[in-house]
Order: sequence, then structure tokens, then C-alpha cells
Amino acid sequence: MVKKVAVVMGSDSDLPVMREALEQLRRFGIPYQVRIISAHRTPAAAEAFASSARDEGFGVIIAGAGKAAHLGGVLAAYTTLPVIGVPIKTSMMGGLDSLLSIVQMPSGVPVATVGVNAAANAGILAAELLAIGDGDLAARLAEYKAEMARSVAEKDAKVCAEYNV
Amino acid sequence: MVKKVAVVMGSDSDLPVMREALEQLRRFGIPYQVRIISAHRTPAAAEAFASSARDEGFGVIIAGAGKAAHLGGVLAAYTTLPVIGVPIKTSMMGGLDSLLSIVQMPSGVPVATVGVNAAANAGILAAELLAIGDGDLAARLAEYKAEMARSVAEKDAKVCAEYNV
Amino acid sequence: MVKKVAVVMGSDSDLPVMREALEQLRRFGIPYQVRIISAHRTPAAAEAFASSARDEGFGVIIAGAGKAAHLGGVLAAYTTLPVIGVPIKTSMMGGLDSLLSIVQMPSGVPVATVGVNAAANAGILAAELLAIGDGDLAARLAEYKAEMARSVAEKDAKVCAEYNV
Amino acid sequence: MVKKVAVVMGSDSDLPVMREALEQLRRFGIPYQVRIISAHRTPAAAEAFASSARDEGFGVIIAGAGKAAHLGGVLAAYTTLPVIGVPIKTSMMGGLDSLLSIVQMPSGVPVATVGVNAAANAGILAAELLAIGDGDLAARLAEYKAEMARSVAEKDAKVCAEYNV
Amino acid sequence: MVKKVAVVMGSDSDLPVMREALEQLRRFGIPYQVRIISAHRTPAAAEAFASSARDEGFGVIIAGAGKAAHLGGVLAAYTTLPVIGVPIKTSMMGGLDSLLSIVQMPSGVPVATVGVNAAANAGILAAELLAIGDGDLAARLAEYKAEMARSVAEKDAKVCAEYNV
Amino acid sequence: MVKKVAVVMGSDSDLPVMREALEQLRRFGIPYQVRIISAHRTPAAAEAFASSARDEGFGVIIAGAGKAAHLGGVLAAYTTLPVIGVPIKTSMMGGLDSLLSIVQMPSGVPVATVGVNAAANAGILAAELLAIGDGDLAARLAEYKAEMARSVAEKDAKVCAEYNV
Amino acid sequence: MVKKVAVVMGSDSDLPVMREALEQLRRFGIPYQVRIISAHRTPAAAEAFASSARDEGFGVIIAGAGKAAHLGGVLAAYTTLPVIGVPIKTSMMGGLDSLLSIVQMPSGVPVATVGVNAAANAGILAAELLAIGDGDLAARLAEYKAEMARSVAEKDAKVCAEYNV
Amino acid sequence: MVKKVAVVMGSDSDLPVMREALEQLRRFGIPYQVRIISAHRTPAAAEAFASSARDEGFGVIIAGAGKAAHLGGVLAAYTTLPVIGVPIKTSMMGGLDSLLSIVQMPSGVPVATVGVNAAANAGILAAELLAIGDGDLAARLAEYKAEMARSVAEKDAKVCAEYNV
Repeated sequence: MVKKVAVVMGSDSDLPVMREALEQLRRFGIPYQVRIISAHRTPAAAEAFASSARDEGFGVIIAGAGKAAHLGGVLAAYTTLPVIGVPIKTSMMGGLDSLLSIVQMPSGVPVATVGVNAAANAGILAAELLAIGDGDLAARLAEYKAEMARSVAEKDAKVCAEYNV
Repeated sequence: MVKKVAVVMGSDSDLPVMREALEQLRRFGIPYQVRIISAHRTPAAAEAFASSARDEGFGVIIAGAGKAAHLGGVLAAYTTLPVIGVPIKTSMMGGLDSLLSIVQMPSGVPVATVGVNAAANAGILAAELLAIGDGDLAARLAEYKAEMARSVAEKDAKVCAEYNV
Repeated sequence: MVKKVAVVMGSDSDLPVMREALEQLRRFGIPYQVRIISAHRTPAAAEAFASSARDEGFGVIIAGAGKAAHLGGVLAAYTTLPVIGVPIKTSMMGGLDSLLSIVQMPSGVPVATVGVNAAANAGILAAELLAIGDGDLAARLAEYKAEMARSVAEKDAKVCAEYNV
Repeated sequence: MVKKVAVVMGSDSDLPVMREALEQLRRFGIPYQVRIISAHRTPAAAEAFASSARDEGFGVIIAGAGKAAHLGGVLAAYTTLPVIGVPIKTSMMGGLDSLLSIVQMPSGVPVATVGVNAAANAGILAAELLAIGDGDLAARLAEYKAEMARSVAEKDAKVCAEYNV
Repeated sequence: MVKKVAVVMGSDSDLPVMREALEQLRRFGIPYQVRIISAHRTPAAAEAFASSARDEGFGVIIAGAGKAAHLGGVLAAYTTLPVIGVPIKTSMMGGLDSLLSIVQMPSGVPVATVGVNAAANAGILAAELLAIGDGDLAARLAEYKAEMARSVAEKDAKVCAEYNV
Repeated sequence: MVKKVAVVMGSDSDLPVMREALEQLRRFGIPYQVRIISAHRTPAAAEAFASSARDEGFGVIIAGAGKAAHLGGVLAAYTTLPVIGVPIKTSMMGGLDSLLSIVQMPSGVPVATVGVNAAANAGILAAELLAIGDGDLAARLAEYKAEMARSVAEKDAKVCAEYNV
Repeated sequence: MVKKVAVVMGSDSDLPVMREALEQLRRFGIPYQVRIISAHRTPAAAEAFASSARDEGFGVIIAGAGKAAHLGGVLAAYTTLPVIGVPIKTSMMGGLDSLLSIVQMPSGVPVATVGVNAAANAGILAAELLAIGDGDLAARLAEYKAEMARSVAEKDAKVCAEYNV
Repeated sequence: MVKKVAVVMGSDSDLPVMREALEQLRRFGIPYQVRIISAHRTPAAAEAFASSARDEGFGVIIAGAGKAAHLGGVLAAYTTLPVIGVPIKTSMMGGLDSLLSIVQMPSGVPVATVGVNAAANAGILAAELLAIGDGDLAARLAEYKAEMARSVAEKDAKVCAEYNV
């Protein structure tokens, strides 16, 4: 059976962005659990969750956070599960603060970072991680890739016919 | 048996940085193969490699590249394996160009990005990915985490005794 | 006869920006074809298109893309035709990510980059490239330059009269 | 009696920078203790230290860290003592990553941030915090300010005489 | 009795942002006084205020300013009280200009900087400074921390139940 | 008699910003003339204007331009009159492109740069330049400074009374 | 016969960087002429050169400049030939100032920009422009592409054999 | 007689950079006085100097400062003389912090900013300001411009002959 993915965020105000990760997980039939855990306001919950995540059946943790975005790093400190970090866009330089706070982790404790607000990609990346040893899931990912290609090809055909002078 | 990790880079001038990934893979007993493939100079090799990587027994691809760093994205276009991107430091704003070129991937094709020049973290992250369903490897990662903690604690004890006024 | 210009973009959501290139091409009587090709979602189409573009009668390729904007570089990898890159504005630092992903190409595979969202300039630049050996087209470009100068001069005359204290 | 200041850093490689804080604390006769605690490698030590710091007699915590610099924030999560953050300069954009990771804390958990590598200012700021209710320490700070002024005035007099054309 | 906090800003247009500091000060029962003082338009008022602030019973100064934000530094030049700087968001790169103008103070004259527009954190930080030697205020801060944790935990429980697939 | 100030801009779309310079010039009774001259579209007009500006009775040139803002530099190339550059805000990083294009002039050909969109300050700066040897104008500037101070002091008095807890 | 390429730079201190363009032009058998022309110090030479460049037999202009790099734009103002801009690296943010000053040209007057210090790519791009209607030159470019691929493939083979664990 | 220029800097460590301003002033025969005045360490000296500068016979003030570079703004607060700001290069992003701290002044109190470390341009700009109403000085500036042009033209002739293939 496919392992669960935890989708953790520092505040429920991040839900509108992080929801796109859930959509992707559902697409691939991956069970998930959403958590609101703040690295700075509920550090004990962060520790409790991350320390036991592997034993609780989780395979991947997705962590969305903005500004001085420590959540991914703090969870990664307490687990050997891969942590995917989603920098939430902020009004301060479009999320560059979030991005740098997440991606520039010290040696020994990586966080797998995706683009600013790229929660959908975090969901797909989680699927890829779980598909490393799971042929069925890998096949579903390949089918998704093919669908994307077909969708672009259709638009290409349409535009190509319309704008050809 | 643990799947292989491919460590791909655009130029052999990236080897001094990317070698740190190899060190970490060796630490965790993970087999690897190094490749020099350029997204722009040998695009056919990029396609050939990435398209068949899963069938060739690879579980994870690490891609290091600098400046307009397209390598990770180009490989990710041809595979459903997870691709870890390592932005190589450049003289242009300390690698910010490499980082943004790698992390800001469009929806559907994620690249798991680590920090600038953080090849060691790429190696450890690869180990974490392979350990999702591998208790032994997970145990080795936990032991590594414990070692790191012990090393810091020793330095703490020493410094704490010396600088206490 | 003037060669064709290909105006390629990664997604049809880029059409509102890229349309300005078409307008300029029409102004100079240059035939063009629009394509939706994604470096990451339809890499095979990118290869097929770019590899045969010269033989298909194209003289210049304009490629518009945003964020980790690999399209221009990927097309340039497969052709010796000049590729003009248009960085599409993004919410992440106003398109700086797109700009750096396009302009900072490795040695050997240049992409001629214009400003963020500067599709009009891409169209004019394409005309300039095709006019290198085409006196008629060069004359039309010179006339356009003269028109621009006249338009500015008219505004100058008007403002100059109004604001003179 | 003046409370103690804790000078915490993530790695002993930060000591050459952080030593300047110690110098300032010694100048003002403030007792201090140096600790090597990593937010990511020894999170338990971070929790243990910060949770009990007030009871252990500390009045201020100075935390120096670089890159994705979470140390200050992680300590602030466990204490109501003021935490002063020192962004350590990195090769990535001169420490901008460290600065943003420290200063952009979420509402409710502030970190008092000084400039990049400004450990001396962290020491002086700690003195100012302890001097809020301590007339003697405030007098020493005033004397230090006067000394600085005298030193600048002397240089001014010398330069003024030399370069006056 | 708790010392007063001065909340100074360069223009009354900063009031909507700075009001959040007042809210926090009221929460902790800390007396405050608001001042409109411009480093560049009323430098004499800046000098007069800062020089006498300690004697007037102030314990902490909060200074909010934007763009070339000199207010915090100019006040700090005239007092040994701790000055907390709040960079006001500007249209120029989201307040990065304000942030750098405040945080990068020269050695000897620190300004304790919080995040862009983070006036609430400035208020809480002021409370922390005053609580160094004040057990009652420290207890109120601890209670506030506990409240924040409870609030996050409640949201966590709710979301956790709703999104668990 | 006070010399004239030329207020030059590359496009009439810059008028809403540059109008603030005119307002200041009127405040100080300084005659001015507005010109629409483009460094790239009407370079001959730029040369003609700048080469003869001193002889035409101008004392100062204000040049507003955005993006690759060459206008100030191009005018400065043809005159020894002081040129004040106003970087116009753009959607690309809030005008940082305009600012750097104007302020980073090569040695020998300075442009006196003010803040992004700071046309009002350009007008006041022009007044300061003309007031170097003009006591009357200097007195009007001093009166303006005093007015600003009074205006801030009034707001201070009001706010100070209202927010004093 | 292949048209000439002009390689223009603002100062002979840019020669060490711009020399790489010459090397590439020689590789492809393209005649060239080097000029030292400053947009700000010899604006008349810039005008004279650019106005007559097409008639003088030039097909492409390469312009290298740093900081407020106006050279490319100023030349483009006087010609309808394509102008390739090379941003020279500066100590100010690694050449970002040069890059933005060149690439962000206003609509109507494009400059084809390559990466920071990427003079070699400017030379190759010039070859691509001249090869649009020149089958022989296009063949030489294709051969160069093949050589690059062979060189990468050789390194790949070597590294692949050495690092395969 | 030509008025004096004050060349003020925050620390004598800025002398090596600021000396280039003196060189230019000497070239144009402009009397000057150098001062070491710190906005933060000797604010009283800043006030005293700036308040009386006009009466002391100064016509222009040049202020060089780095990091949170408040010196220019603080002097401008106390005088109606034009203040030229020189952002000193720092290790933090190449002087971008200094530049923004100087150029982004609030409305009403402009600082005429030149490029990072561009003390020579500050000197030349000062000469231009004093030459507004001084035909002799204007003539010397014109001669300097002509010399620069000749020097570039000589290099052009030499390089042009050497690199012409």
C-alpha cells in the first residue's frame, strides 16, 4: 500500500495555496493528512509530529511556509523522511525571503524545495518519491505526463492553425 | 537491493562541487553512476539517459548545473523519477541565477532543489528518498543524524567550558 | 522571399504578451507561425520543431517563457538558427527569474534575450536579423524608426508649448 | 547583578565572527556563556537551552547563524527572553539569505536582528537591553558613546588639517 | 512600574502599520506614547526627544520608517536606550530598501530590526525587553505564547479532521 | 535672474510622475521648460537639446526615464550642465532597473540621481543647485524646510495627544 | 561574401572579456573590426559609427559595456542593424546593473542581450545571424555544435567509467 | 571666487575611496575641506557642520558613507546646500545597501546620488554645480570632456588598427 503524505503548513491562511498539493495527491490516489503546525508557535507539536512521522506510516512530508520559513527545516531536524518545502509567496520580494529560508539548509539536513507557491509540484514530487519503488504509481505518473503532453499538443494544433501568416 | 543514483552534471568543471554528493552516497552504501550530460550541448544524450533511467535501475537523479541551469528540468521532462537539482554557484549574484533557473519549474514537472553548491545535501536527500521504503537505509540515516548531533554536542561542551565569563 | 519567423511559447497563457511580436512581424510583412511547445511537457515536439526549423524555411525563432524559462535554451540546443528569448513577467520578482533563466546560457549556445515581456522588441529584432541582407526590409525598418521619431517629436512640440513657464 | 548573556551559534566555524560580541560584553562587564547549538542538528539542545534560559539567569540570547538561519527563530519559539539574531555572511548574495531568514519572523515571535556579521552590535545591543533598568550599565554605555565621538573627532581634526585646500 | 515605550514614526501615513505595535503594548499593559518625528524634516525634534528619552521615563523606542529609513539610526545616535526599527513596506522592492537602511547600522550604534511592516513584532519585542527583569510581564508573555499555541492547535485539530484522506 | 530648468522625459507617459517636479519648481519661482526627448527614438533631438542647453539659458536638466533608462546619461554626454536623473518605477523589480541604469554612470560623466519616482525631490534639488549662489532662492528653500518642520510638528502634537497611554 | 561584425566596447579595459568574441568570429571565418567608442565620452563617434555601419558593410554590431551600460542602446538608436549587447561584469552585484541597463530597452529599439561577460556567445550569436541566409556558415555552425557534443561525450565516457560504484 | 566643497565621510577608512573626489576638485581648481563626521557617532558635529556650512562659504557638500548610509541624509536635514551622496561599496551585495540608504530619501530632502564608490564622479558633479553660473569653470569642464574624448579616440585608433580582420 502507498504510504501517506503529510501536508503541513504554519497557518490555515496557507490552505488556499497548499490545497493544490492535495489535488495532485488525490489524482494519484495517495492518502494524505493535513496539519497546521507552526515552527515558532507550536514547536512541541512540530517535534512530536516529525519524530513519529515514519512510525505513523508517513512516507513524505510536505511543508508550506512563508517569510522566515523555518517549518521545513524544523521538521527535517526531527526526521529522516524526505521533507518537501513550499515557499509561500509574500509581499516582500515575491517570496524570495521564503525561498532562501527554505532552500539554503545547512549540510546534513536537506529540504527538497520547489518553486514559490508551487504546491501542485510538491504534490507531484511526493508522488514521484513514492513511485521510486512502486511500478503502479510510476505508471500513473507516466500517464499524467502523457496527458499533459496531449493537452499542450492540442493547444499547439489550434494556435498553429489560427496564427500562421 | 538499493537502487542506483545518477549524478549528472553539465560539465566536468562541476565535479569538484558534485563530488560531495558521491561522498554522501558512499557513506550510505548507495550505488551511483556519474554522467557528464549537457542540456544544451548533448540534448540527445539527456533524452536518451532520462528516458531509460528507470529501466536502467536508477531510483533518483541528481543534476548539478550553473547559470541558466536547465539540466534538471530537461531531465525531468523525460522521466518520472525524482530529479534533485543542485544550483552551482556562479559569479553572477552568487548562484541566484542557477537557483531560480532550477527551482521555479512550471507546474507538472518538479525539480527537488537544494541550496547553492549543496551537493552533499543532494546526496543525503537521495538517501532519504531511497529510504522511504527501506528500513535499513533509514536506520543508517538516523545513525548519521545522531553522529552529527554528537559532533555538535562535543564542540558545544568544549566551547562552553572555554567561553564562560 | 523573406524567411518565416516561428513564435513559440510554452503555454497559450503567454499569448496576450506574445501577440505583440506578431503585430510587429505583420508591420514588416514577415510571415510567421505560432507554436505552443513546452520544454518540459512536450520535449519531443521541441526537438522535432527545432531540428527541422531551418529546413522548414524558418529564419528566426522567438521563444517566450516564464519562471524557470528553459524553452529558448532547449530550442537553441537543437538548431543553429538564432533564438530570441522573451522572459515572461512572473509574480516572483517581476520576471527576474525568467530573465536570468534565459540570458545566462552556457558558452556555445546563445539565446538573444530582450526585456521582460518585451515581445514587441522581439518582433522588431527578428525583422532586424532578417534585414541584414535584405535592403527592402532594412528600408522598412528605417521608415519605422523615422515614424517613431516623428511621433515623439509631435508630442515634444505639444508638451513643450504647454509646459513652458 | 547584571544578568548573563548567552551567545549561541550553529557551528564553531561562526566563532571568528561571533567573538566580537564577546569583546563588547567584556567591555561592559556583562557575564556571558557561549554555546554551540544547531537548530537542525541538535534541536533537542536548542529546546532544552531556550526553555530554561530565563531560569538559568540569562537575560538576553544572541544567536548567530548563516544561510537558512533558523537558530534565532527556533530559540525564540521556546523562550520569552529577547533573542538577538546575527546573520552570518555567506557566499550567497553576501548574507542576504541569512538576513531574510532571521528578520522576517512571523507575528508573535520576534527576533531582534542586527546587520550581516554585526556581532559587535549584537553585544552592544545586549548591553542596551540590560541597561534599561540599570543606571550603572547605562552610564557605561553613555561613556562608550562619548569615547566613540572623541575618537571620530580626533580623526576629524587630523584629516581636516591635512586636507584643506 | 513598567517603563514607557515610545512609538515614533516619520509620518502619520505610517500610523496604519504602526498601530499594530500599540495593540500589542496594550495587550501587555505597557504605557506608550506616539510621536511623529522625521529624521530629515524635524531633526531637532529627533535630537531633543532621543537625548532626553531615558530621563523622561522611556525604556524602549520603536521607530518605524520607510525607504531611506534613517529614523531609527538617528534616534539611536542620541540615546543608549534600545531602539527597535520597523522597516515600512515601500513600492521599491517590497521594503528591501527600508530594511537595509535600518539593519545595516555601523558598529557601535545598533538598531534592533524586525521584519518589513512587522510593527506587531516590534511591540512584542518591546515587551520582551521590559520583561528581562520583570517577572510579571514575563508571565504575561508566556501566557500569550501559550494562547498562540492553543489557537494553532485548535486550527490543527479542525483541519486535521477535515483533510485526512 | 534665475536660470531655467529643463524637465526632459522619454515619453509623455512619464508626465504624471514628472509633474511633481514642475510643482516644486513653481513653488520656488523657477522658470522651466518640459521636453519629450527619447534617447533611443530621437537621439538627434537629445544631442541638439543638450549641446545648446547652457547657451539657451538653462542651468539644470532634470531627466526622467524608466527601464534601461539612458536619457540622463545621453544628455550628460553632450553638456557640462548638471543632469538630475529620476528613475521611473517599472513593473520589473519596482524600478531597480531604472535606478541602476541611471546611477551607475562611468567615471567622468555623472548623473545626480534621486529616488525612484522622486520627481518632487528632483525639483527641490534643482532649486538647491540654483540657490548655491542665490541668497533669495536659498531663503525660500530655508522657508520651505521650516514649513515642512512645522507641518510635521503639528501632526506630532495631535498624534502625541491622542495616543498617549 | 560574409558581412563584417563590429565589436565595440566603451573602454579598452573591456578587451580581455571581449576578446572571446573575436576568437569565435575567427573560428567561423567572419571578418571583424574592433572599436573603442564610449556612449558618454565620445557620443559623436557613436553616432557617426552607427549611422553609417550598414553602408560600411557591417552586418552585426556587438557592444560590450558595464555598469550603466548605455553603449548598445545608443548604437541601436542610430542603426537598423541588429545590436548584440554584452553586459560586462562589475563589482556591483556581479553585473546585474550592466545586464538590466542593456536588456530592458524601450519598445522599438531592441538590443539582443547575452549573459554577463558572455562575449563568446555574442560572437557565436553574430555567426548565427549571418548564417540565416548563408548555408556554408550554417554548416560551420552545425559542425561546431557537433564538436561541442563530441567533446562533452568524451568527458562523459571518461567520467562515467571512473565514477561508477 | 569659487565656493568651497566639503568632502565629508563617516570614517577615515573611507578616505581611499573618497580621495578620488579630491583629485577631481583639484583638477578644476576648486577649494575643498575634508571632514570625518559620523551621522551616528558624532551627530552633534553633523548638525553643527551642516547648519553653518553655507555661512562658512561652502557651496556643495559631498558625503560618502556605507551600509546604512545615513550621513548624506542627516547633513541634508540641516542645510539647503546640495548634498552629493557617494555610496561606499560594502561586502553586503556590493553596496546596494549603501545605495538604497542614500538615494531613496523622502520627499523634501533630496540627496544627489552617484554610483557605488563613484567619488570621482561626485567631484566632477560638484564642479558642474559650481559651474552653473561660472563660465570659467564651465569652460574647464568642457575642456575636460574634450580631453576624455581625445583619450578614447586615441585608444580607438590604436585598437581599430590592431584588430581589423
